[in-house]
Amino acid sequence: MAVIDPWGAELHADYEKIVKQFGLEVFDASAFPQPNRLMRRKVVFAARDQKLIADCIKKKKPYYALTGIMPTADKVHFGNKMVVEQLKYFQDHGAKTFILIADLEAATTRGVSLETARKRALDFHIPAYIALGLDPKKTTFYFQSENKDVVHLAYEAAQKITLNEFKAVYGSADPSRIMAAVTQVGDILFPQLTERMPGVIPVGIDQDPHIRLTRDVVARTKTTHNFFPPAGIYHKFTPSLSGGLKMSKSQPAGNIDLPEDPLDACKKILKAVSGGRKTLEEQRKLGAEVEKDMAFELLKMHLIEDDKTLNKIYADYKSGKMLTSELKQIACEKMTSFLNDFTTKLEKARKHLDALTFITFH
Amino acid sequence: MAVIDPWGAELHADYEKIVKQFGLEVFDASAFPQPNRLMRRKVVFAARDQKLIADCIKKKKPYYALTGIMPTADKVHFGNKMVVEQLKYFQDHGAKTFILIADLEAATTRGVSLETARKRALDFHIPAYIALGLDPKKTTFYFQSENKDVVHLAYEAAQKITLNEFKAVYGSADPSRIMAAVTQVGDILFPQLTERMPGVIPVGIDQDPHIRLTRDVVARTKTTHNFFPPAGIYHKFTPSLSGGLKMSKSQPAGNIDLPEDPLDACKKILKAVSGGRKTLEEQRKLGAEVEKDMAFELLKMHLIEDDKTLNKIYADYKSGKMLTSELKQIACEKMTSFLNDFTTKLEKARKHLDALTFITFH
Repeated sequence: MAVIDPWGAELHADYEKIVKQFGLEVFDASAFPQPNRLMRRKVVFAARDQKLIADCIKKKKPYYALTGIMPTADKVHFGNKMVVEQLKYFQDHGAKTFILIADLEAATTRGVSLETARKRALDFHIPAYIALGLDPKKTTFYFQSENKDVVHLAYEAAQKITLNEFKAVYGSADPSRIMAAVTQVGDILFPQLTERMPGVIPVGIDQDPHIRLTRDVVARTKTTHNFFPPAGIYHKFTPSLSGGLKMSKSQPAGNIDLPEDPLDACKKILKAVSGGRKTLEEQRKLGAEVEKDMAFELLKMHLIEDDKTLNKIYADYKSGKMLTSELKQIACEKMTSFLNDFTTKLEKARKHLDALTFITFH
Repeated sequence: MAVIDPWGAELHADYEKIVKQFGLEVFDASAFPQPNRLMRRKVVFAARDQKLIADCIKKKKPYYALTGIMPTADKVHFGNKMVVEQLKYFQDHGAKTFILIADLEAATTRGVSLETARKRALDFHIPAYIALGLDPKKTTFYFQSENKDVVHLAYEAAQKITLNEFKAVYGSADPSRIMAAVTQVGDILFPQLTERMPGVIPVGIDQDPHIRLTRDVVARTKTTHNFFPPAGIYHKFTPSLSGGLKMSKSQPAGNIDLPEDPLDACKKILKAVSGGRKTLEEQRKLGAEVEKDMAFELLKMHLIEDDKTLNKIYADYKSGKMLTSELKQIACEKMTSFLNDFTTKLEKARKHLDALTFITFH
């Protein structure tokens, strides 16, 4: 068996371009102790100021990790799962962990009332994040709408950005987008009001504009606040089962939500774009084009933790020993198990909401 | 002596144009009981929904009057004086009165810290507004930065306005301006969260964009809030003593701040643009061009309450009986008395801040 490194493949051309275009660092898993699956397999592929965070971990210096929940629908997705996994990684490595409920953003960008947002967050999103691996005992939660400090930082941030800069970063600049963006700046910097320390924001690469904007604001408020600029850790999108760059509700056949009926999920996996050959004979002879196989991508990114197990599947599939139907069967079983596990944990988390630590404001 | 109506002059061409261009109502003092000096003399010249407010006064229905204080410098001006006088008029005629401290706006548009804004407001601006005539016992105060309801309304309002609409109303659309404007929308509508009722906002005509924006937001949130659109009552600018449309810090020779040393104020009045003739002989023969006289404008807009007294001065000056030096002497005396009175009342108000009613938030 050849030496195989299924997660060592070069970056997808688009991701490579992004790293260069936006002046990102290539993520270096070797700088971090016990890198998790996403870090080892280059799903996490880019960063800003990663050494600052790696240094905090190594020297046990205080730092924080933060993400937000946008309570707009009663679903989360594999992108959220990756954020939680990264957050958990940092939480397990000494980070003070913050989760904010972006109810002001939901109000201004989606017209969701604060009451609806609050209900959804408590009924579903917070339990879902706990089900995905977050330790509720080590996490601090808050609602944007209750956090005056965040709002105050947002108003201050707005003074530091011109409309043209905003357009350059975001493409558009509708008032609600501006409000949402400066509020994110407030969220990202908020923990440093209490304790000046580096912070890391794990996000999908499409969220980098918020990190850049925040870093700009930090540079422009040096004399008043002297914040650390936030570090960013960026992951790739989970590709659509239909072959697109990103799972999305607009392509339901390629999209699996959390939660989802495992039978529906398996149906989608069976129809997923595969790297298998046209005939059984060709498959046995040439082996699969594993890099094109969306079911394998799911296994690699989300469903198989153990590197050796994934390695073996890769080798067998690549060599022609394993057929597409067999690979999809594995993906379906793992997905079913994951979705059932998620539902169970979700129910359990719902029953223990009273143990959460919310920041309360006066 | 001819029948003279010094405040019955036609609107200045610019003001007439504004009324037509922006679809304003010509203000009708006869619709209001006991109109004050500004209303009688057409300094208040335009309105939106004035009948709604006049109706509340007549039928003793609940309504509110509201204005904001922008604590950016330790000065107020004659424009603020007019706002307070209008507010007092409505307060005396049944309005629930609100004064907000626009500390979030000061932060986002001028970079003033919330702490500085709060200190200035308490040390100077609130006492100054009381010195200018507001009854502190009948007024409710709040700081924007403490009023979550206002902030929530602001975020909601941002969702209802596009960038292009914003540009059309304001000319520019920098992020900080957008934040300030939607926060004003929140302020203007805030009292209706507790009690749905008409409200009136007395402002200089340059502030109409905020009223228009708020009325647009009201129209677009009909199904969720069903607010009354705010009524606007607009006053003219106090002209610069040097002859410009508006007193302004950028023309210090024509500008009198509150407070100001009466000696300095008198010096400015002596140098003010006058309607007097070139020679004593001409003045006696032709009489003054009163409409061009900035000292007379001060008497009319701010310094002489009694119509008969003003009437007599107008007649004597117009007929040539009164000389420019005599008119300026009157203006100087009245101004000195007003400024001294203001300083005394300011000191007194400062000592009674504990009697104010601030809205407290939890």
